[in-house]
Amino acid sequence: MKIISSPLELKEYLKGENNSIGFQGSKSIGFVPTMGALHQGHISLIKKAKEQNELVVVSIFLNPTQFLKGEDLDKYPKKDEADKKICKLSGVDVLFFPHVEDIYGTDEVTLSAPNVRGYVLEGNSRPSHFNGVLTVVMKLLNIVTPTRAYFGKKDAQQLNLISLMVKQLFMNTQIVPVDTVRESDGLALSSRNVYLSSKERVEALKVSSSLRAASSMVGKNILDSKEIVKEMRKSLGDLEIFYVEVLNLDFEQLLHVEIGNTIILVEVRVGTTRLLDNIWL
Amino acid sequence: MKIISSPLELKEYLKGENNSIGFQGSKSIGFVPTMGALHQGHISLIKKAKEQNELVVVSIFLNPTQFLKGEDLDKYPKKDEADKKICKLSGVDVLFFPHVEDIYGTDEVTLSAPNVRGYVLEGNSRPSHFNGVLTVVMKLLNIVTPTRAYFGKKDAQQLNLISLMVKQLFMNTQIVPVDTVRESDGLALSSRNVYLSSKERVEALKVSSSLRAASSMVGKNILDSKEIVKEMRKSLGDLEIFYVEVLNLDFEQLLHVEIGNTIILVEVRVGTTRLLDNIWL
Repeated sequence: MKIISSPLELKEYLKGENNSIGFQGSKSIGFVPTMGALHQGHISLIKKAKEQNELVVVSIFLNPTQFLKGEDLDKYPKKDEADKKICKLSGVDVLFFPHVEDIYGTDEVTLSAPNVRGYVLEGNSRPSHFNGVLTVVMKLLNIVTPTRAYFGKKDAQQLNLISLMVKQLFMNTQIVPVDTVRESDGLALSSRNVYLSSKERVEALKVSSSLRAASSMVGKNILDSKEIVKEMRKSLGDLEIFYVEVLNLDFEQLLHVEIGNTIILVEVRVGTTRLLDNIWL
Repeated sequence: MKIISSPLELKEYLKGENNSIGFQGSKSIGFVPTMGALHQGHISLIKKAKEQNELVVVSIFLNPTQFLKGEDLDKYPKKDEADKKICKLSGVDVLFFPHVEDIYGTDEVTLSAPNVRGYVLEGNSRPSHFNGVLTVVMKLLNIVTPTRAYFGKKDAQQLNLISLMVKQLFMNTQIVPVDTVRESDGLALSSRNVYLSSKERVEALKVSSSLRAASSMVGKNILDSKEIVKEMRKSLGDLEIFYVEVLNLDFEQLLHVEIGNTIILVEVRVGTTRLLDNIWL
């Protein structure tokens, strides 16, 4: 596995890889951007990228611009050596591991999230968060120029906004959504789960069980969003709820679940930790 | 000459052109984005693109998002048929002529100009102008994926910000600056010159003569920015001046002209028409 920290060196390396195949063009490149602290969720992204592409690039970059002041940038889990091992064992071809100053300069052109879809849900409680996400993803996609880039469905709004960016700005990468990976008891994997105390870890299970409750209602043909949200809020008990929403794939509110076109999303705070989860129906 | 209005059709066409060359990759593409009303300035961009690339794409798109409310979007000169002829005669391979709805949807991800360099000079008097410029140029570059894109030095701040965008966002196009083309009496060519009455046309010559005055001072080794600006303001007489600035190529103010690293910029209003001009020393 090649480890590269310089964007220009990575560009050169990938150009060389592409030329090495000679006649009629380019190797397909699968790209998995991460912030490190890799877990089985990331591994499933890498697996999918391996299946679908000739060359797999993973980036590890703790992106400062997507953290608001006072958020957990400084205490975000770092596991550089373990992450490298995971990438190597997962068959990653190139690990892109830049420093902040490789990616950001001063007084820069940035991306701005859409006025409506960028400022609901997560974007409502973290107003400049998605500008930072879109800016770094744009930079990374332009450095790696992947055929396909892989994002988890767990961060559904992030996935939605990145897909919008790629479509609206006519970018030349296919965005591939990958299913959420869960612990056996239902908790969605997240690098931030390490923040949870053992008591909070138990509380956190209410999130996935609220979604299972929703799913089971839909199974019984109860499709009314209000009823579903009410039931979910009951399951969530006394957790601090940021939102519980029933949306279509364009992130517009739905009065009724439309099978094949619905995401039910929830965000809560357990202790000091924000937890996101969702199901796609 | 192929004329295409759909972004996806253009992408497909260019992909086909690239494959047609067969073995070892891609034709070089030179791209000249314009808002139409083509003049000799545009033709010099096209010529340069022809010299340096195997395939030349010109776009004509009157971009609404770079006009502020109350500006001249509605009366901006349109010369569609003449423009097509000019492109054909200039040896353009593909003319990209999209409609507004081919380029823009609703609630979109946009580009934001840098907080400092995006809001001086032109960006000071037209605050959201460069966000619109950067957004449309990003879209066009992603559609055309040119090897090189050509921009006139006359719009120096636009050129500077587009170069910054390409560098900071790691885009894969080379930005090529092209010298300003002038009438024989010195007036810099601009599609907006048609707005000038014959009396205003005479007044407008003060702009280029103020720059010639500056240039002649530098020739005499008078390099002090204050002195130069003072002399230029004298040449501009009673024209309404937006700014007269001596900057380095990074758009930072210079106390003294640095040969090889200086742009002297001026913007005035003649009648209702904004006129920009500059020299690079």
